[in-house]
Amino acid sequence: MRPAETAERLSRRIAVARGDEPADLVIRGGRVFSVFTREWLDGDVAIVDGVVAGVGEYEGTETLDATGHHVVPGFVDAHVHLESSKLLVDEFARLVLPLGTTAVVADPHEIANVLGTDGVHWLIDACEESPLEIYFMASSCVPASELESPWRALTTGDLEGLLHRSRVLGLAEMMNFPGVISGSPSELEKLALARHVDGHAPGVTGKQLQAYVASGVGSDHETSTAEEGRERLRAGMWLLIREASAARNLQALIPLALEYGPSRIAFCTDDREPEHIADEGHINSMVRDAVALGVTPEDGLVMASLNPATYHGLDHLGALAPGYQADVLLLPDLESFAPDFVLKAGRPIGEIPHVQVPEWVRRTMHLDAVAADDFHVPWQGGSARVIGLIPNQIVTAALVDELTVSDGFAVADPARDLAKVAVLERHLGTRRVGLGFVRGFGILRGAFGATFSHDAHNVVVVGVDDRAMALVVERLRELGGGIVAVDEQVRAELPLPVAGLLSDRPLGEVLEASREINAAAQALGVTFPAPFQMLAFLALSVIPSLKITDRGLVDVDRLELVPLPV
Amino acid sequence: MRPAETAERLSRRIAVARGDEPADLVIRGGRVFSVFTREWLDGDVAIVDGVVAGVGEYEGTETLDATGHHVVPGFVDAHVHLESSKLLVDEFARLVLPLGTTAVVADPHEIANVLGTDGVHWLIDACEESPLEIYFMASSCVPASELESPWRALTTGDLEGLLHRSRVLGLAEMMNFPGVISGSPSELEKLALARHVDGHAPGVTGKQLQAYVASGVGSDHETSTAEEGRERLRAGMWLLIREASAARNLQALIPLALEYGPSRIAFCTDDREPEHIADEGHINSMVRDAVALGVTPEDGLVMASLNPATYHGLDHLGALAPGYQADVLLLPDLESFAPDFVLKAGRPIGEIPHVQVPEWVRRTMHLDAVAADDFHVPWQGGSARVIGLIPNQIVTAALVDELTVSDGFAVADPARDLAKVAVLERHLGTRRVGLGFVRGFGILRGAFGATFSHDAHNVVVVGVDDRAMALVVERLRELGGGIVAVDEQVRAELPLPVAGLLSDRPLGEVLEASREINAAAQALGVTFPAPFQMLAFLALSVIPSLKITDRGLVDVDRLELVPLPV
Repeated sequence: MRPAETAERLSRRIAVARGDEPADLVIRGGRVFSVFTREWLDGDVAIVDGVVAGVGEYEGTETLDATGHHVVPGFVDAHVHLESSKLLVDEFARLVLPLGTTAVVADPHEIANVLGTDGVHWLIDACEESPLEIYFMASSCVPASELESPWRALTTGDLEGLLHRSRVLGLAEMMNFPGVISGSPSELEKLALARHVDGHAPGVTGKQLQAYVASGVGSDHETSTAEEGRERLRAGMWLLIREASAARNLQALIPLALEYGPSRIAFCTDDREPEHIADEGHINSMVRDAVALGVTPEDGLVMASLNPATYHGLDHLGALAPGYQADVLLLPDLESFAPDFVLKAGRPIGEIPHVQVPEWVRRTMHLDAVAADDFHVPWQGGSARVIGLIPNQIVTAALVDELTVSDGFAVADPARDLAKVAVLERHLGTRRVGLGFVRGFGILRGAFGATFSHDAHNVVVVGVDDRAMALVVERLRELGGGIVAVDEQVRAELPLPVAGLLSDRPLGEVLEASREINAAAQALGVTFPAPFQMLAFLALSVIPSLKITDRGLVDVDRLELVPLPV
Repeated sequence: MRPAETAERLSRRIAVARGDEPADLVIRGGRVFSVFTREWLDGDVAIVDGVVAGVGEYEGTETLDATGHHVVPGFVDAHVHLESSKLLVDEFARLVLPLGTTAVVADPHEIANVLGTDGVHWLIDACEESPLEIYFMASSCVPASELESPWRALTTGDLEGLLHRSRVLGLAEMMNFPGVISGSPSELEKLALARHVDGHAPGVTGKQLQAYVASGVGSDHETSTAEEGRERLRAGMWLLIREASAARNLQALIPLALEYGPSRIAFCTDDREPEHIADEGHINSMVRDAVALGVTPEDGLVMASLNPATYHGLDHLGALAPGYQADVLLLPDLESFAPDFVLKAGRPIGEIPHVQVPEWVRRTMHLDAVAADDFHVPWQGGSARVIGLIPNQIVTAALVDELTVSDGFAVADPARDLAKVAVLERHLGTRRVGLGFVRGFGILRGAFGATFSHDAHNVVVVGVDDRAMALVVERLRELGGGIVAVDEQVRAELPLPVAGLLSDRPLGEVLEASREINAAAQALGVTFPAPFQMLAFLALSVIPSLKITDRGLVDVDRLELVPLPV
């Protein structure tokens, strides 16, 4: 993926390296990190045309004083869903570049569920002007399972088309690991498209894991124990240590870096909420936490720069050495890993152009008006399947309980912490609604809902009042998507008009709205921590145990629809 | 370079990995090396269709008992000139496969000098049936310099054509490092052809080295000191530690593997004589010697397997893990590294088909008959440039001395250890002859000569008797190339009729003839160790200091022709 060179650029770079021509910029006085030997070198970094020409004693047209600083390559996020930030890519870049993340490899499967390849092509195009260097993997599992309803399923032909885009590096996480392991022809057909394939293998071990790796999958970011990680490394997988908002694996996996060294281990954020990035940081937070857990700063830096670049074949990134792109961080210390200064391709981060969002990307709410009785559940009594929440986890328990009945309908019962949950298909106007019950939110009145709900991003609404649930949907229709909390009326909202996934507002406004909806949820009585994160995973049909889509309740372990009554 | 998969093969491999179908072969009872974690695992290796399906507990149609053995991946030679073995590729394979080398990356620049791209295409085709897996780099410097005379120079277009062959991985060693560093347009044009470029940078340091790396060169195998190696690793080059017959760098460089670990260090043999391989071994000898020098067996094995494969992008080689080709060695111990058993792509090495050599590859001696007076050097007295040999080195000294004069001709003078040396152009029948004098062989009578002489492989003859020198050339013409020692008559010969470079005989006969010509040289009074190795480098115009080609004496430091008189 090293950009094509012109003879003129190459000739100039060599002349600068020789010392016969001045560099555009020389970084002087710092300690320069060699990712290859994990040493600190005293020397200048000579940069020309955005590329490192040499490390040594150099003169340049401009000089950047790095005295007292550690000079290190920019961080690369090995696996991220940009949409989880709720930010447009320009605003995402404004957030993470100052934190030292200068390149990311994104799986656009959220927007792919909403807008198919059209949405992915738009997103790729929208990244063109970004100083944050954004690569993509072609989303391999849209929908996540047959029990979800995206706008359109991505076909093998769609994936082939995406793989032809120059910024698409390979096939994104093969989430259908049971399909891969069982040798499903449709999954093998996808695997045949690419040599570079990300994995997704939560809990897969033993021969199942050998089979998954034998298929050609090269990495896993769903590893949650050191023993699983050890098995993956031994089998030749790259271990992408993931520290997402709802799934944090760094602490459990860092002992592997201590035992084996950093080889074939890279950091990724997967899904981070905007608050998480704003409060804790991005890849830099993983280096910081790894070092706090005993990793040397040098090993931590390698897992954040050279390793993710190497894994993805981005051979122009991840190092400060001749021929590498000059993505450079000046770190004041080796504890916080918060850069004082960031250079992207040899330049300071300037103004970042605003992404233009075409109307078709804003018009993704294709569902009719709903009324309270659309949420009615006729019920004659008896036991029902109930989704049981578990704090700080996105897996759920498959509970069985009696439902409270009123006038021949099953109803929410705040006294028993039983709320109603509905998933409404919103892409094709099918009027399909899945209805069920959930325990654990603690909601006492009103309702809340969102269009950001993995992976199909249909409308998910939780409430104890059918009229409030209808009002949530009505407001989401008006907004073109978002997150809404309703009491008698709309109490708070985070509009996500871009595909129903992203805000078009600056980070500050998003954070403020996010705080407001969380506060509003609390005002409704909600006690579950980070309720909208949980809400976003309630409809994901590939995370155990009981989930719900627009098609109804899903027994994830058997990957089949199950009726509400037991 | 992983071979394209069929859905059927992939499906079967996954089924075997799952344990639902029997493997073709299971290797049982050994300790299996994980190159990724540098650990020994207890488990079976399940192989199907020549590929590892899984490591664990498996059943197979056949079982190979590896009890008491270390099970490791086959060795990969990161840089070799096959022609230096003097063997056809089938015989080379018969020699090195039992030693554990299961793949090599070859630079065919010897045959390229003799037969241009025609010869390279023939050699690539000749490797097609070889169980030894042979990849190529496109020879970037044919001729090595403008002062040598190959059959045809390889143009940029020629290189582009070679790079299109499926087994050609990139551009071979950019020997013209001064040209690269100075930004020569013709060298930059070559560099633009490939992303994967081998280097050759003897003694290059500082900004010169930064410039060489900035050009895109990715490795060096000419490093001879730890300090040079350290500088190369820091600059992002891969360090290919070379242990050739005439240039042995392992001992000097292995401290780097101890200091930094084995990352980005790989082994190569470059130029090994057949005796060297027969007596000491091949890549296995480097692992053995590295371990004797204090490297752990695990690190030694990684530098011989995973690392060379990784450097060259051979992502199906170098490991025993799902999806990797089943090139497997059973080692009885971790000292000798001599395998008891070798599997190539899951099969024992069977009969290796003989390579057919077409007539045009055998007819490469295009020079007219010569007589004694073709070697006469008219001389009026005065100082002359004399090539000074240095034992165990291929560099020479540029001496100045009086020549012995007889009847108006400068003559060899055995009493002063002054022999005559001639290089005769043999590709185009130009009758061009370079004449000079050399000190250090110790030859007392007769002459010896060879067509194997880097890089242009013209005829090089050394002698103290012009008639004997003529007889050497005459015999080489009859043989179609080779190595010949002459007294009054031919005393010994090693015919190399294939391009004047290779024997078409089995190893045993080549070794016997090689012993005989060395003994014959001794009988001529030669005291210089390995005189034919030295002879092969006398005409290489890019190794300091004074060399000779068919165009005359070459001052290598200034890369220009110089006259015999000072």
